[in-house]
Amino acid sequence: MTITPPKDINIVPFVNVDNMMKLILDVGIENFLRELAGFVEDDFRRWELFDKAARVASHSTEGVIELMPTSDGDVYGFKYVNGHPKNTREGLQTVTGFGVLSRVDTGYPVLFSEMTILTALRTAATSAVVAKYLAPKDAGCMAIIGNGAQSEFQAMAFKALLGVDKLRLFDIDPEATEKCSRNLAGKGFDIVCCTSAEEAVEGAEIITTVTADKQCATILTDNMVGAGVHINAVGGDCPGKTELHRDILLRSDIFVEYPPQTRIEGEIQQLAADHPVTEIWQVISGAADGRRDARQVTLFDSVGFATEDFSALRYVRSKLPGTPYFDNLDMLADPDDPRDLFGMVLRAAKAA
Amino acid sequence: MTITPPKDINIVPFVNVDNMMKLILDVGIENFLRELAGFVEDDFRRWELFDKAARVASHSTEGVIELMPTSDGDVYGFKYVNGHPKNTREGLQTVTGFGVLSRVDTGYPVLFSEMTILTALRTAATSAVVAKYLAPKDAGCMAIIGNGAQSEFQAMAFKALLGVDKLRLFDIDPEATEKCSRNLAGKGFDIVCCTSAEEAVEGAEIITTVTADKQCATILTDNMVGAGVHINAVGGDCPGKTELHRDILLRSDIFVEYPPQTRIEGEIQQLAADHPVTEIWQVISGAADGRRDARQVTLFDSVGFATEDFSALRYVRSKLPGTPYFDNLDMLADPDDPRDLFGMVLRAAKAA
Repeated sequence: MTITPPKDINIVPFVNVDNMMKLILDVGIENFLRELAGFVEDDFRRWELFDKAARVASHSTEGVIELMPTSDGDVYGFKYVNGHPKNTREGLQTVTGFGVLSRVDTGYPVLFSEMTILTALRTAATSAVVAKYLAPKDAGCMAIIGNGAQSEFQAMAFKALLGVDKLRLFDIDPEATEKCSRNLAGKGFDIVCCTSAEEAVEGAEIITTVTADKQCATILTDNMVGAGVHINAVGGDCPGKTELHRDILLRSDIFVEYPPQTRIEGEIQQLAADHPVTEIWQVISGAADGRRDARQVTLFDSVGFATEDFSALRYVRSKLPGTPYFDNLDMLADPDDPRDLFGMVLRAAKAA
Repeated sequence: MTITPPKDINIVPFVNVDNMMKLILDVGIENFLRELAGFVEDDFRRWELFDKAARVASHSTEGVIELMPTSDGDVYGFKYVNGHPKNTREGLQTVTGFGVLSRVDTGYPVLFSEMTILTALRTAATSAVVAKYLAPKDAGCMAIIGNGAQSEFQAMAFKALLGVDKLRLFDIDPEATEKCSRNLAGKGFDIVCCTSAEEAVEGAEIITTVTADKQCATILTDNMVGAGVHINAVGGDCPGKTELHRDILLRSDIFVEYPPQTRIEGEIQQLAADHPVTEIWQVISGAADGRRDARQVTLFDSVGFATEDFSALRYVRSKLPGTPYFDNLDMLADPDDPRDLFGMVLRAAKAA
């Protein structure tokens, strides 16, 4: 028995994992990525409006738990996300998450959502949005080095937004490549499974690195990166976790989300703190150049920023009305008289 | 139809408002406060273990939304809480909240709970724990100035932990006092409703101030505070929101939770940044003196700290096994092969 029927204001729509999958399938993965990318791009365009801060991280020997808040003055959002590279060895996800949107004027939450799947989609959508501005014109071939949980989402987003239809896959674990290739079969790609990173980058106009080990690795060495390539560096995203040889960084034009965060977490943690970088919102809003010429090496040093999660939650919220893809959670106590919280508990005792 | 039955690891117990009330009533409010206070006190005792930071606040003209994370190295917790003093005018709560506990080793959440009611209880329990060390010996009479949502919880906690059984209530709104008095009827108190703050403090050994207006107010002036009194200052808890005249602070021994936060948010925002204060964990752990003599004015400048929410969540988690007071939320995507998140979505499509 429910002892106090909740009022509408207390009720927060919750999108669980099952409903998130149903929503994605209903919208269609490519369409979902395209629409989500639109929200990400819109929010980069109004970047200056946002209340921005580097994420709040709690580090342990096994991984990190982070809170990523932001606000556009009207809506507040945050994501909880963990990063535990050793989790996969125990059958768990490296990254899981959930997020909340709230009204700034009342502080009341209006959406609670799983964000393990949604983060995978927003990361891929963000990479593709950025690549629209940085990748060589009409790029059709992408190498994906690291074929784990994020790889297929990257492939689908680059197909949906840029028309990439040739993939060259490599992972140090051939089973991961096989899994990625199998999952993408029938999705309109010409897929080559490679036995080395060197082989994977041959002929690729875009190189996506998305490996998971928490270490300073060298997935790409300088000689592997030809003129004109766009590097979408997704896997190097926390202190002590990088993927690219420093020499690549020195000859690339580097684009980042939020410099105070990227300098700590991104590939550029290998460089001097004042090494020049361009903020991607400036490119998207037209204030700075993206790709200027065909021989330039561009690098998106992606670490993931709170506004992208905000965009993703905002997108999901926009899709829910009229669908059955959410549950109503009785999350907020709201007595008839707001000063009478104790009385609400007392009356619950009488009702029970 | 559920397209992918979730595995246990994905499932997070959720305590909604209704279940929180049922749990409290099942345990009994006084017993709940006493047990909760034990968890708060234990965590103050192991204060040095905790990963501590001032809360992460997003301020707006209407209020504030805050995230309060902490970790003891084993368990991580955070609370989302808003503070919107004008909310009551719209029939909403000034403060609402929810919280999460997670495993540090995997980053996976293990509890999600409403914290509007729980925050009210933990705030009161913390005040009473602190008063055990600071209030005059055998104090039996407490003035409560500000008779809003927190007032009854304070009364019950001081009764449960210190045996306070005489209350002197005052609020600028007599209806609030009437509500507080009515809610506490039959709970074992001798209650006097007063028409001024001056009248309320007469004979009180403990003065609790718990008003809600967001301004630098002067609920207590210096002449109202006699020798030997313990002041439990709960309402002054954010920048620009104080309750006590500065002169009171200058003649009190001031005890705080976490100085970097209290200097910004507490009564001591009125004082120099190096004004001496004692951290309450040091008193509780025996490293510093609490009350030393009968004429000393002690002041607990309470703003609420993340460890207290952590203690409260930890307590609630300890009470759930074997009860029906939670729902299972499918919060975390967890494919059979952790690298196969995309495949999980694909298989959901087939299942649907």
